[in-house]
Amino acid sequence: MAPWTIVGGGSITSVPGFRAAGVHCGLKAGDELDLALVVSEVPCQAAAVFTANRVQAAPVLWDKEVLAISPEGVRAVAINSGCANACTGEQGLRDAQQMVRQVALALGTGPHGVLVMSTGVIGQRLDMEKIGAGIRAAVEALSTEGGHEVARAIMTTDTRPKEIAVQGEIAGRRVTIAGMCKGAGMIHPNMATLLGLILTDAAIAQPLLQRALRQAVEASFNRITVDGDMSTNDTVAVLASGLAGNREVKAENAPDYAEFLEGLTFVATELAKGVVRDGEGATKFIEVQVRGARTEAEARQAAMAVATSNLVKTAIYGKDANWGRVICAVGYSGVEVDIERLSLWFDDLHLVKDGQPYNVDEERALEILSQDEVAITVDLGQGEAEATVWTCDLTHDYVTINAHYRT
Amino acid sequence: MAPWTIVGGGSITSVPGFRAAGVHCGLKAGDELDLALVVSEVPCQAAAVFTANRVQAAPVLWDKEVLAISPEGVRAVAINSGCANACTGEQGLRDAQQMVRQVALALGTGPHGVLVMSTGVIGQRLDMEKIGAGIRAAVEALSTEGGHEVARAIMTTDTRPKEIAVQGEIAGRRVTIAGMCKGAGMIHPNMATLLGLILTDAAIAQPLLQRALRQAVEASFNRITVDGDMSTNDTVAVLASGLAGNREVKAENAPDYAEFLEGLTFVATELAKGVVRDGEGATKFIEVQVRGARTEAEARQAAMAVATSNLVKTAIYGKDANWGRVICAVGYSGVEVDIERLSLWFDDLHLVKDGQPYNVDEERALEILSQDEVAITVDLGQGEAEATVWTCDLTHDYVTINAHYRT
Repeated sequence: MAPWTIVGGGSITSVPGFRAAGVHCGLKAGDELDLALVVSEVPCQAAAVFTANRVQAAPVLWDKEVLAISPEGVRAVAINSGCANACTGEQGLRDAQQMVRQVALALGTGPHGVLVMSTGVIGQRLDMEKIGAGIRAAVEALSTEGGHEVARAIMTTDTRPKEIAVQGEIAGRRVTIAGMCKGAGMIHPNMATLLGLILTDAAIAQPLLQRALRQAVEASFNRITVDGDMSTNDTVAVLASGLAGNREVKAENAPDYAEFLEGLTFVATELAKGVVRDGEGATKFIEVQVRGARTEAEARQAAMAVATSNLVKTAIYGKDANWGRVICAVGYSGVEVDIERLSLWFDDLHLVKDGQPYNVDEERALEILSQDEVAITVDLGQGEAEATVWTCDLTHDYVTINAHYRT
Repeated sequence: MAPWTIVGGGSITSVPGFRAAGVHCGLKAGDELDLALVVSEVPCQAAAVFTANRVQAAPVLWDKEVLAISPEGVRAVAINSGCANACTGEQGLRDAQQMVRQVALALGTGPHGVLVMSTGVIGQRLDMEKIGAGIRAAVEALSTEGGHEVARAIMTTDTRPKEIAVQGEIAGRRVTIAGMCKGAGMIHPNMATLLGLILTDAAIAQPLLQRALRQAVEASFNRITVDGDMSTNDTVAVLASGLAGNREVKAENAPDYAEFLEGLTFVATELAKGVVRDGEGATKFIEVQVRGARTEAEARQAAMAVATSNLVKTAIYGKDANWGRVICAVGYSGVEVDIERLSLWFDDLHLVKDGQPYNVDEERALEILSQDEVAITVDLGQGEAEATVWTCDLTHDYVTINAHYRT
């Protein structure tokens, strides 16, 4: 299979056929970018996954309708930060639709050709005057160089944009896949867990695009957690323009589907890891691997219990090799545990063997925990299945950021 | 039904027939009390509930054996802080048994007459020399005034002891019920969630004592959360000496059972609330009530999702009336939610009605959030069921305490 290579300094406009613009319309204070517009030359196949939260924001409801009605004809995506348009009732839905109409009007496309996403404070109405002016300005500013701008325009508590572009071949034709996402808090998986937009010029049938996105998200965004809180607005969408000219990917068991899925999963995984690295207040990136499980589902359940434990996350923050908290979290994960078979490592340091302290080298442990990245590995000793998830530490800054988010 | 009244300055030795002592044996630094011994004049009916964590500490395994073999003959409870004796394998179990034998020897009782509990760091062996010396010293120091001492001796990150005694009547005889517990972190319900010991001189058959304890714990300790982490050592035990001389409580549907249960539940609830008030780093006590649910289980599930949300807890800490986070947590709780029927209050301030902002009086909200206690009420508008749980805020101090717990 052809490898996918990263495009240095890439952004979503590294994909031929897409233009983008990020502007400041006034939803965020100062002069920070807060409105992003991405437009395709041609109608795209579109697919998306959404939050599993029972409370869903207006733009989520709209996008679901678009995908049900018009999966093959999406031309544009408009995204605002600063206001989530969630818990805003009927009026919120009307506001989302007006945002859509403004984009459609400016571009001369139908309303079902436009996806919208919103992120920010819950329970406040969109300021439609600002949104309208922002969209008009963004349409004027659209450019094939606009990728980095839009990645910044969708940020909230993020400290840096998350974006990546890769190139590879599908059935012998050069294809680009690029994505961006935002998210630093209210991050917990169970579907997409943030706003993400992935673009590609690959030609692929819509049902397969949706399937590939689900598979890629399952292996990436659904493997990360920052704080265990699942947002009302989570959306990851992918648009595929077909401009690369490859023969349309049509069969799940064909090599070209596997090629596409590999590239899409790589992009989604890099974006997801970027979210954790930029987790609110995070000082460390933590990889939790559970192996020796009976099933992959159990491995993941145990790994996620460790990754969401406040006590594990504060210990890592404090460079404290308190492995007992890791075992404790595995113990309450709901997975059957035979303590006498359990092993545990921090990086290559084998701290626990057969459920008891083994090579407790505190000096080496402190060295490991002083790194920016820490790998925690637990072997349940019950089978061959494994799973890896990613998280960050829980810090004073997380508390500071979230104690005064609205102010 | 006769009311239960609080004994001013009460402790577990407010129950006639029990003596106690707390000593320093060296498991904790400085000269802090770290070993507690409680002894009954006569063999007691005993009942207990334990952690649901699959990883269970050695003393938990021992106590389960005692309750299976000898539920009617418990004479003493020995508790150490500073070391959890968890993840210590066969040796840990031998250490727990040695601790039991030392108590049994000193008191001239059989080993199955002694319960043990341990709390502290996971993965370290008990120092049996210190334990042995501590037990000998505690036996010497036993006194009917020792209640306050033992409540201090079982503390770890607790900032204050949690203890209460009540008196009332059962079938016309004066009965005392008193309890103490420790716990400030690694607190999350699913059975008992900490170490707790409740004593009474009531006469009650063992199966009913066990049933009453389960019911009381369900309404108290299983309704609190500090950080979502369930410990390996959680144990709540109750000893009933029968010295009050009431006719033995024998039937669940008799008035005397209801009288006893009321007192026991009151004691357990006060202790549980005390744990939350003293939650690691806590500055605020938060009561979360969900009503208008279809079932009590759903009400509790939704309330617990709010109470465990890091984002809700940091917002309350920051006095930020960010009610969107409460609704968001209800949304991902797994309970069916019809956003258009949802109402929300902070104390008496009706912030959300029919899923939309209602009386958003930020000034009044700030006043409410400046109090030491905050009530969050959510009405799902779907039925008549309700549930209340208790938690605390998530603060900088929580992170500080847990980043360096072992050091």
